Amino acid sequence: MAKVAVIMGSKSDLAVVKSAVAALKEFGIEVEVRVISAHRTPDEAHDFAKNAAKNGIEVIICAAGKAAHLGGVMAAYTTLPVIGLPIKTDMMGGLDSLLSIVQMPSGIPVATVGVNGGENAGILAAQILGIKYPEIAEKLAAYKQKMKDKINSDDAAVQKEAAEF
Amino acid sequence: MAKVAVIMGSKSDLAVVKSAVAALKEFGIEVEVRVISAHRTPDEAHDFAKNAAKNGIEVIICAAGKAAHLGGVMAAYTTLPVIGLPIKTDMMGGLDSLLSIVQMPSGIPVATVGVNGGENAGILAAQILGIKYPEIAEKLAAYKQKMKDKINSDDAAVQKEAAEF
Amino acid sequence: MAKVAVIMGSKSDLAVVKSAVAALKEFGIEVEVRVISAHRTPDEAHDFAKNAAKNGIEVIICAAGKAAHLGGVMAAYTTLPVIGLPIKTDMMGGLDSLLSIVQMPSGIPVATVGVNGGENAGILAAQILGIKYPEIAEKLAAYKQKMKDKINSDDAAVQKEAAEF
Amino acid sequence: MAKVAVIMGSKSDLAVVKSAVAALKEFGIEVEVRVISAHRTPDEAHDFAKNAAKNGIEVIICAAGKAAHLGGVMAAYTTLPVIGLPIKTDMMGGLDSLLSIVQMPSGIPVATVGVNGGENAGILAAQILGIKYPEIAEKLAAYKQKMKDKINSDDAAVQKEAAEF
Amino acid sequence: MAKVAVIMGSKSDLAVVKSAVAALKEFGIEVEVRVISAHRTPDEAHDFAKNAAKNGIEVIICAAGKAAHLGGVMAAYTTLPVIGLPIKTDMMGGLDSLLSIVQMPSGIPVATVGVNGGENAGILAAQILGIKYPEIAEKLAAYKQKMKDKINSDDAAVQKEAAEF
Amino acid sequence: MAKVAVIMGSKSDLAVVKSAVAALKEFGIEVEVRVISAHRTPDEAHDFAKNAAKNGIEVIICAAGKAAHLGGVMAAYTTLPVIGLPIKTDMMGGLDSLLSIVQMPSGIPVATVGVNGGENAGILAAQILGIKYPEIAEKLAAYKQKMKDKINSDDAAVQKEAAEF
Amino acid sequence: MAKVAVIMGSKSDLAVVKSAVAALKEFGIEVEVRVISAHRTPDEAHDFAKNAAKNGIEVIICAAGKAAHLGGVMAAYTTLPVIGLPIKTDMMGGLDSLLSIVQMPSGIPVATVGVNGGENAGILAAQILGIKYPEIAEKLAAYKQKMKDKINSDDAAVQKEAAEF
Amino acid sequence: MAKVAVIMGSKSDLAVVKSAVAALKEFGIEVEVRVISAHRTPDEAHDFAKNAAKNGIEVIICAAGKAAHLGGVMAAYTTLPVIGLPIKTDMMGGLDSLLSIVQMPSGIPVATVGVNGGENAGILAAQILGIKYPEIAEKLAAYKQKMKDKINSDDAAVQKEAAEF
Repeated sequence: MAKVAVIMGSKSDLAVVKSAVAALKEFGIEVEVRVISAHRTPDEAHDFAKNAAKNGIEVIICAAGKAAHLGGVMAAYTTLPVIGLPIKTDMMGGLDSLLSIVQMPSGIPVATVGVNGGENAGILAAQILGIKYPEIAEKLAAYKQKMKDKINSDDAAVQKEAAEF
Repeated sequence: MAKVAVIMGSKSDLAVVKSAVAALKEFGIEVEVRVISAHRTPDEAHDFAKNAAKNGIEVIICAAGKAAHLGGVMAAYTTLPVIGLPIKTDMMGGLDSLLSIVQMPSGIPVATVGVNGGENAGILAAQILGIKYPEIAEKLAAYKQKMKDKINSDDAAVQKEAAEF
Repeated sequence: MAKVAVIMGSKSDLAVVKSAVAALKEFGIEVEVRVISAHRTPDEAHDFAKNAAKNGIEVIICAAGKAAHLGGVMAAYTTLPVIGLPIKTDMMGGLDSLLSIVQMPSGIPVATVGVNGGENAGILAAQILGIKYPEIAEKLAAYKQKMKDKINSDDAAVQKEAAEF
Repeated sequence: MAKVAVIMGSKSDLAVVKSAVAALKEFGIEVEVRVISAHRTPDEAHDFAKNAAKNGIEVIICAAGKAAHLGGVMAAYTTLPVIGLPIKTDMMGGLDSLLSIVQMPSGIPVATVGVNGGENAGILAAQILGIKYPEIAEKLAAYKQKMKDKINSDDAAVQKEAAEF
Repeated sequence: MAKVAVIMGSKSDLAVVKSAVAALKEFGIEVEVRVISAHRTPDEAHDFAKNAAKNGIEVIICAAGKAAHLGGVMAAYTTLPVIGLPIKTDMMGGLDSLLSIVQMPSGIPVATVGVNGGENAGILAAQILGIKYPEIAEKLAAYKQKMKDKINSDDAAVQKEAAEF
Repeated sequence: MAKVAVIMGSKSDLAVVKSAVAALKEFGIEVEVRVISAHRTPDEAHDFAKNAAKNGIEVIICAAGKAAHLGGVMAAYTTLPVIGLPIKTDMMGGLDSLLSIVQMPSGIPVATVGVNGGENAGILAAQILGIKYPEIAEKLAAYKQKMKDKINSDDAAVQKEAAEF
Repeated sequence: MAKVAVIMGSKSDLAVVKSAVAALKEFGIEVEVRVISAHRTPDEAHDFAKNAAKNGIEVIICAAGKAAHLGGVMAAYTTLPVIGLPIKTDMMGGLDSLLSIVQMPSGIPVATVGVNGGENAGILAAQILGIKYPEIAEKLAAYKQKMKDKINSDDAAVQKEAAEF
Repeated sequence: MAKVAVIMGSKSDLAVVKSAVAALKEFGIEVEVRVISAHRTPDEAHDFAKNAAKNGIEVIICAAGKAAHLGGVMAAYTTLPVIGLPIKTDMMGGLDSLLSIVQMPSGIPVATVGVNGGENAGILAAQILGIKYPEIAEKLAAYKQKMKDKINSDDAAVQKEAAEF
C-alpha cells in the first residue's frame, strides 16, 4: 500500500496539514503524520529522511512557515520526492515561507505548492503515486470529475440567481 | 522505459529548458521536448495533456514566464504530476512567473521549482520516477554523492587558498 | 442589444462579480453570468470562448484569484476583448492574482482592472461597447456626471464639518 | 476608418510605443501618435481627452512609467476606453508603473496590459474595435492563426534539435 | 495668516485627513478642507491648483489611495509645494498608494510622507511654513519638546514596570 | 539669499546629488554640499542639523541608500523641512532606501521624493523656498513653462516621425 | 553579571519587547529596559550608546518599527553588538522595519532577527554572552533541550491523534 | 586567540565571503574558511556545528543565497552565535536569501546582516568577540575612527569641488 509522510515543523501548522492528510486518505493512501522541526529536532529530521525509503515511505510532505527549512533539510537526506507546503505568515502573506521553500539550490529540488495549499500537497502526492499505483490514478480521475461536477452545479445555480443580481 | 515531456511556452525559454533535459538524460530517462503555448496553441496543449498518459508519458515539465499558465492548463487535462518551471523575467526577478505557477487553486496542483531551476525540474521528475523505477533511484543516489564530492573538493581547495584571502 | 459575459472561476468570487453585473445592468447591457473554471471545467471554458462571438457576446469579463488563468484561457480561444478582474487574496493583497492576469505574453492581451475592481470591470465593458452603441456612451456620460455630483456634494458637506475637525 | 490615439508621457517611452503602433497598423487602424504629459502639459492632456471622441478617436492608449498618471488623467475626461501601458522602470521591474495605472478608483477604469506590453496594447485596441469593425475582427483571427503557425513551426524545429540537447 | 489646503480624493479618506488637520490647527495654521477627486472632479482639481496661490494657500496636502494621482494632478498646475499623503489599502499595505505618489517624473515633485501619515503631513506643512513664519517655527520647537517629554515619561514608567516583565 | 544644504551619506551618492545641486543653482539658490554620514560621522550630523537654522540654511536635502537613516537623524535635531532622497540599490530597485526614509514615525516627517530623484529634490526645495522668496516662485513658473515647451516640441517631432513607425 | 539593554523606540512596542526581556531573564541575564527614540529623544539615544560599555552593558537590543532607525543610531555610537528587532507594521507585514534595520551600510552592522522576533532577540543576546559566560552557555544548552522535548512531545501527541484526522 | 568560522554554501559565494574574511583578519581574528552545503554535505554541516565550540570556534558566519538554509542548519546544532550573510540573487535583489535567513522560528536565532554584507558580517563577529577580548574592542574603536576620518576627508573634498557642480 502506498504511504506518504506528512511532517509539520510546528504543531501550529496542524490546521493546514489536516487538509493534506484528508486528501491523502480520500485516495486510500496510508499517512504517517509527524511533528519534526528542522531546527529544534534536527536529528529526528535527518533520521526520518535517511530512513524514509526503507520504512516504506514514497513521498514526504513538509509543512513549514517563515524561514521554512524543513523541506530542504529532508531533501538533503533522501532522493524521495519532497513536497514543500508553505504556511501563511504575517510577512506579505507567506512570501517568506514560499521563497524559503521554492528557491532551492541546484541538485536538491523541493516540489512546492501554493501558500496554505494543504489539499494540493495531498493531491500532488497522490498524482506522484498514481504513476506506480493504477488504483490511485483511477481515484484521481474520479476526483477530477467530482470537482467538475461541483463547478457545473455552481454554474447552474448562479445562472438561475443571476437575474436578481 | 521512463518518459518525461518537457514543454516550453516559447522557444525563448530554451536555454533553461535544456538544463532540465540534460538532467533527465543523465538519469537515463527518455525525454520528449516540445514548444506548446497555452495561449497560442491551446488545442495542442489540451491534446497533449489529455493523451500524455496513454502516450507513455509519466511526468510533464512546463516552463513558462510572466503570466505563466502552461502548467495549469496542462494540469487541467491530466492527473499526471505536472512540474512548473518559472522563467526569470524583468518583473521582480520572475516573481510574476513564480506566483502564476505556484498559487494554483485547490484540486489542481502544479509542483513548482525555483525560478530558472531547469536542472531541479529534471531532478524532481527523476525523483518522482524513482519511486517506480529502482534504477533511477540508484542513479539519483549516485548523483547526490557526486554533488557531495564536488562540495568536499571545493572545500579542500578553499581551505588551502584561504590563507591568502 | 449589447451583451457581456461575466465569468467567475469559483463561486467564492461572487461578491466581487455582483458589482460588475450591477454596473453592466445600470448601462442597460444584457449580462450572462457563469461559473466556469479554467482548471476544473476547462472544456466548458474553451467551448464558451470559442462560441462567445457567435452567441452574441461582445465582451468577456473573467474574475479569478491566485494563479488566475481564466482570462488567459478564454483569450486563447477568442479575439473578443477579455477583461481580467483579479480577486483579492491573502498573498500581498492579491498581487498574485494581478500578476497572473496582467503579465500576458505578446499577442494575447487581457485588459486588467484593479484588484476586486468589479465595478470598474463592468464600466470598462460599457466603455468598450459605447464605441458601437451610442446609447451606452450616453449613459456613461450621465454616470460620469453622477460621480461628479457625488464628490461635489461630499465636498460641500466636508467644508461645513471641517470647522470642527 | 477606425482610429486609435497612442500617447506617451515622455519621448523616452518611444521604443515601447512603437510596438503598439506597429500592431495597430498591421490591423489597418489609423494611428495618431502623441507626446503629452499628464504633469508637464496637463492642459494638452485634458483637451486631447475631452475632444478625442469628436475627433474620431475610439480608443486611447497611454504609455507611462513610474507614477504613471497619464491614463487616469485621460480617463477622467472621456468615456472612451483608455488602455494603460506601464513602462518598465528600475523599481521592481515596473511595479510602480503597473500599480499606478491598474489600481484606479471605482468609476474610472483603465484597461491595463503588462509591463512594456506595447504589442498587446495595440492588439487589445484592435480587439475592442473589432466589435464594431468586422474587417478588424477578421484580421485578428488571421493574426491568431499566424501566431499559432509560428509556435507550431518552433515546435517542429525544437523536436528535431532535441536529440542533441 | 498662513493657510494650508488639505484635499482628499474621497470622503473615505477622512479619518486620516483629520489627523493632518488637527496637527495644522495645533500650529495655528488656517486650514481649508476639501473633497476633490483627480478622476471624478478633474476640473475642480485643476481650478483649485491653478488658483491656490492667489487664494492665499501656501501648501497643499493631497490624501489619496490606490492609483493615487491627486497630488500629481495638483502639482501639474501649481508651483506651490504639494505634500502627498498615501492612504493604506489592501494591496501590500498601501504600497500602491505610496509608489503612485512618490515616483513622480523629473520636474514635478510631490513631497511624500508615510502611509496613513496624516499627522506628519500636517507637521511637514508647518515646517515648510515655519521658514516664513517665525511663530510657527517656535510652535514646532515646543511640539518637539512635548514629544521628547512624552518619551522621557514613558521611559521612566517602563523602567519602573520592567522589574515585573 | 535663500540657502539649501545638500548632504549625502556617502560620496558614492554624488552623481544623484549633483542633479539636485544643479536644479537648486538654476533657481539662484545658494547650496552647501556636504558628505556627512548618520552612522560614521553622527556627531557631525547632529551638529549640522542643530545649527542649520542659525547658519542660514532653510531646507536640508539628505541623500542616502539602503538603511537610509540620514534624513531621519537630521530631522530629529531640527524643525527645518528635511527632504529625503532615496538612492537606488540592488534591493528591489531602492525599495529599501525608500521605505527607510518615507516611513518615519509620527512627529518627525521627512519629505520624500522618488528613488534617484535628485532633480526633484532640488525643485521641491525651491518650491518650499518659493513661498518666502517671490523671485524663486517666478523662476519656478518659468521652469514649468520650459518643461511644457520641451514636451510640446517632442510632441511635434513625434507626430512628424510617426508616419514611419 | 552579564547585562543587556533592551530599548524600544516607542512604548507601543512593549508587547514584543517583553518576550525579549523574558528570554533574557530565563538565562539569568540582568536587563535594563528603556524607551528611547532615535527621533524624539536623540540625545538620550546617543548618550545611552556612548556610555553603554562603561555602564556595564554588553549587548544592546533595539526594537523599532517602520523607518526603524534606532538600532543604526545606537550602533553609530558604540562598538558593542547591537541587535535589531523589527516590529510588525501594516506595510507588507513589517518589511519596512526589516529593511530599515538590516540593510546597514558597510562598517556599522546591526544583527537583525525576524519581524516581531522578541524571543529570538533575547536568545541571540544570550548566545553572544555565552561566549564569555560559561553559565549562560550551559543554560542555552538546557533551553535547546527543552525545545527539543517540547517538539518530541507534540510529535507523540500528533501521532496519536492522526488516526482521526 | 579568538577564532571565527566563515562558511559558504557554495564556492560561488567566495567574492562576498572574502570581504568578511578580510574584515576579521584586520581585527587580528583567526579565521577558518570552509565550503559546506546545508543540502549537499549536510553531515559535514552538522558535524561542523556540533563540534565548533570544542574546536575553539566562537562565532560562525554562514553565507548563502536563495533558499539560504545554511545558517539555520548550523544554528540547530550549536548555541554559538551564528551570523547569516544573505547573498544577492536575481529574485528581487536577494529578498529570497534575506527572508530565508532572518525569519527563523522562535528559539533558534540567526543574526542577519544586509544582502552581500560581507564586511559587516566580519565586523559584527568582531563586535561579539570584543565583549570577551578587549584588544578586539580596541581595534574596533580604531576602525570606527578610521571610517570617520574617511568621511571627513570626503566631506572636505566635496566641499571644495562643489562650486563646480
